[in-house]
Amino acid sequence: MKLASLKEGGRDGTLVVASRDLTRAVRASGIATTLQAALDDWSNTAPRLNALSEDLNAGTAAGAFALDMHALASPLPRAYEFVDGSAYLPHVERVRRARGAEVPASFYTDPLMYQATSAGFLAPRDPVVVPSEDVGIDLEAEVVVVTDDVPMAATPAQASEHIQLVGLVNDVSLRGLIPGELAKGFGFLQSKPRSALSPVLVTPDELGDAWQGDKLHLPMRTWLNGQWFGEAECGVDMQFSFAQLVAHVARTRPLTAGTIIGSGTIANQDTGKGASCLAEQRTVETLRDGQPSTPFLKFGDRLKIDVTDAAGASIFGSIEQQVEPLAN
Amino acid sequence: MKLASLKEGGRDGTLVVASRDLTRAVRASGIATTLQAALDDWSNTAPRLNALSEDLNAGTAAGAFALDMHALASPLPRAYEFVDGSAYLPHVERVRRARGAEVPASFYTDPLMYQATSAGFLAPRDPVVVPSEDVGIDLEAEVVVVTDDVPMAATPAQASEHIQLVGLVNDVSLRGLIPGELAKGFGFLQSKPRSALSPVLVTPDELGDAWQGDKLHLPMRTWLNGQWFGEAECGVDMQFSFAQLVAHVARTRPLTAGTIIGSGTIANQDTGKGASCLAEQRTVETLRDGQPSTPFLKFGDRLKIDVTDAAGASIFGSIEQQVEPLAN
Repeated sequence: MKLASLKEGGRDGTLVVASRDLTRAVRASGIATTLQAALDDWSNTAPRLNALSEDLNAGTAAGAFALDMHALASPLPRAYEFVDGSAYLPHVERVRRARGAEVPASFYTDPLMYQATSAGFLAPRDPVVVPSEDVGIDLEAEVVVVTDDVPMAATPAQASEHIQLVGLVNDVSLRGLIPGELAKGFGFLQSKPRSALSPVLVTPDELGDAWQGDKLHLPMRTWLNGQWFGEAECGVDMQFSFAQLVAHVARTRPLTAGTIIGSGTIANQDTGKGASCLAEQRTVETLRDGQPSTPFLKFGDRLKIDVTDAAGASIFGSIEQQVEPLAN
Repeated sequence: MKLASLKEGGRDGTLVVASRDLTRAVRASGIATTLQAALDDWSNTAPRLNALSEDLNAGTAAGAFALDMHALASPLPRAYEFVDGSAYLPHVERVRRARGAEVPASFYTDPLMYQATSAGFLAPRDPVVVPSEDVGIDLEAEVVVVTDDVPMAATPAQASEHIQLVGLVNDVSLRGLIPGELAKGFGFLQSKPRSALSPVLVTPDELGDAWQGDKLHLPMRTWLNGQWFGEAECGVDMQFSFAQLVAHVARTRPLTAGTIIGSGTIANQDTGKGASCLAEQRTVETLRDGQPSTPFLKFGDRLKIDVTDAAGASIFGSIEQQVEPLAN
């Protein structure tokens, strides 16, 4: 099934089930008012949401209406935890190579992850609002999973059973602020502001063969100002599966229902697939030409992130955002 | 007023108003079911909660009952954002001195803060559960504030107006995991598991003269296994006020109602005041004796964190926890 949240009903929106083709939706009234509430009681709500989804896809759901992507909030407008990974090592390898550094051997066995902000996710068609153009505004197209409750010290096999939803994220990054923050030693803060999830999150069974080994096996399609930017393969060069990433986070803490775990920006060894963030593209250019030629995002720039099925249909809905200045 | 949450009614507990002397409480029925709900609509709920608080303190609140600290959940059992600072530079200076390093000049003008987990806070009398004794288990006694909605790019003066509640936190730290995680460059994750907030959070007006310049001017009293451990002055050597810390986090993002901002472990230049974390005490010992003599926490060890008023009465209730192993 596919789940989304309308921009109505309060800070957490109103939960709807979306049709497989993303043209219709129906409120989950009587099951759960919000996606967080559904995840809080997932073993009870998931079967009922699934039944509603079957009715919707069969055209028999009462109260179904045309789905307007602009009426959607983020599926989780606010969440309790978002831990983002950096699971595609070609990106890490290239960045290090560009500055003449080695990738530590441990990076191939110990996931690199960071605590990200989850307090607010931008709606999938809402602007990316940034206080200045001079901070190196970048997108990062990634895959995310959402878990229900995961016990502390869960193994990857156990963690796999707790992956309930899959989606996309535009992990907005302010590159100009990153070197200074990382030099302070405590990780990202101002350099990683609010991100945008895809319009819908889907259960792994919706993905069929494209979900195997706790990885998504489809290309991440990105466009900038209407121009093709990349189609890196999400299932290729992902060093750690989502089950491994979830288990890594759960080593010393239980995870609360609704926890979001990100893959990191999709990057392949094959640079012919393009990039999923400007920093990656600029690194490829630096290694090739000695300097980057693609600028970071400016006010007015538009980005699009989408993953489509074999027939070319959007699975999660596309993230489409424009960069805008903070209003005074 | 003083606010707390009972361990009843669901994942977010049930909001109660506590009496000034922490002996009585009353459910906030009809105003807000949870503290998060109250914060989501603070301009409407705060005056009504204040009125209930006045009734409770006057002995006229219907439904008041004896307050049992063990019946309390964390005041925010789960929250959307916790950003912790390191605002007491004597701690940073000593740690650096012990390893022969300098404190960068920027640390005196640019707050050091990190994105922490907010997905679950331990109840104030619940155990600290850790998967192993070998990870350098430490407490960190800190002050926290809770904000309502803060706009992006708020100035410190504007941020000050959004500080609605003050409390304490035991920011549990697994010291043995920190060097490895910080060496990876993306900050804390496994090394900073769930923390515990104080039993109650209080509005700044409850603190009288002890709340000035967006800082708490009282000693942070800590005990380990019943023995005095420290009474560092929270109002001394705090390089950045809470208003400055809130503004730092809000530079590139709005803050959601219920955001928790921490001070970092309380540490003074005057080591005669003791410490607020074992790492600090061990650093003092290393500088004095060449090596640390105080061990990290073991299973069964007990900690207590409290801040009292001039008459010796606990303001926030004490955090009292025992360290326990993860059950198999």
